[in-house]
Amino acid sequence: MITITAYNWVPDFARGQVRDLRVRWALEEAGLPYQIRFIAHGDNKKMPYLGVQPFGQVPVFEEDGFHIFESGAICLHIAERSEALLPSDANARARAISWTFAALNSVEPEISAVLDIYLFHKGEAWVAERLPQVEASLQRRLDFLAGWLDGKDWLEDQFTVGDLTMAAVLRSVTFNKMVSDHPVLGAYVERCTARPAFRRALNAHLADLKGPSPFG
Amino acid sequence: MITITAYNWVPDFARGQVRDLRVRWALEEAGLPYQIRFIAHGDNKKMPYLGVQPFGQVPVFEEDGFHIFESGAICLHIAERSEALLPSDANARARAISWTFAALNSVEPEISAVLDIYLFHKGEAWVAERLPQVEASLQRRLDFLAGWLDGKDWLEDQFTVGDLTMAAVLRSVTFNKMVSDHPVLGAYVERCTARPAFRRALNAHLADLKGPSPFG
Repeated sequence: MITITAYNWVPDFARGQVRDLRVRWALEEAGLPYQIRFIAHGDNKKMPYLGVQPFGQVPVFEEDGFHIFESGAICLHIAERSEALLPSDANARARAISWTFAALNSVEPEISAVLDIYLFHKGEAWVAERLPQVEASLQRRLDFLAGWLDGKDWLEDQFTVGDLTMAAVLRSVTFNKMVSDHPVLGAYVERCTARPAFRRALNAHLADLKGPSPFG
Repeated sequence: MITITAYNWVPDFARGQVRDLRVRWALEEAGLPYQIRFIAHGDNKKMPYLGVQPFGQVPVFEEDGFHIFESGAICLHIAERSEALLPSDANARARAISWTFAALNSVEPEISAVLDIYLFHKGEAWVAERLPQVEASLQRRLDFLAGWLDGKDWLEDQFTVGDLTMAAVLRSVTFNKMVSDHPVLGAYVERCTARPAFRRALNAHLADLKGPSPFG
């Protein structure tokens, strides 16, 4: 049985955004059953967990005694088992993997740079000068993506793990309307997250966040 | 024949850091011959290049009419052809891919956040307050990595594409001594970049940067 690590409590801003959600979504698309192993906050930064996840993050994918970490690597591993996420045609496969890396290395870091400020630094003196810079940088990256997606349903001919990771990344832009009000990007995220597999994954993710706050 | 896109001129700060270098390194480790197709600055942000690289970045990997973008996806594609980069054992393979994503999604964004300030914003009023925050965040991530690597030559039992991407990412920390003076991380980067395949890739990368500046 596939086991995924997750938290059973996170602060409000992280509900619906922890990275086990991406992996649950991939598992739902692939039709693979899984179970959750909860990790207590604090235990994730100690052994034995650091022995399987060197940065103390969730999720870890566990199966038959073997361990994969990083949501991108896990999603790709799941995708290799399912043509619903990774086409068998060599070129289509390579494009889907390219988009997975694009989501995680070219788009998500730009979003994280803005998100970090909104979540953790609002009101600090330096923000007024810096925030417009990182928002403009994100906007430039999103403009390229929107140019590519304009007139398309998916990044390539069919929904793949590339769309899954890209949509998971884009929907973390909750701090302003840069994505949600964009005619191309907003519609793309809605199209991806309307998939039944995403709804099942989101519901399961949220239902599992029922633990008591460890911070009282 | 494999073709990689690259620039023939970049500003001094980018020499030895453009992402075609990672891909050349992977090709050298795998023993695969390749040729370079130069892209003029400006042309990378227009069609037809945007048709194969949606964000206008280098490199693109071209072979038999098919195109892969994102240095991580390209390195992984090359690694799939060579046990020198990706072991055939399923668990070792999954760990190597996990580390590739860790380099690009958990470590590189932290470095980029600091690098951006040193390269493009030194002297701006907000930097004095912000720089220590992003450096502290990077330090925390590096501490986990150093904890894992302590006493090890490579991230797992043998050098893989995971080490290649991690070392490529770590060696971009040229703005301070956080990596180079660290007893574990500095030695690790030296060990990786002492490999003959890296030296050949670096020399070829630098030798190709002989074009005239397009900016006069």
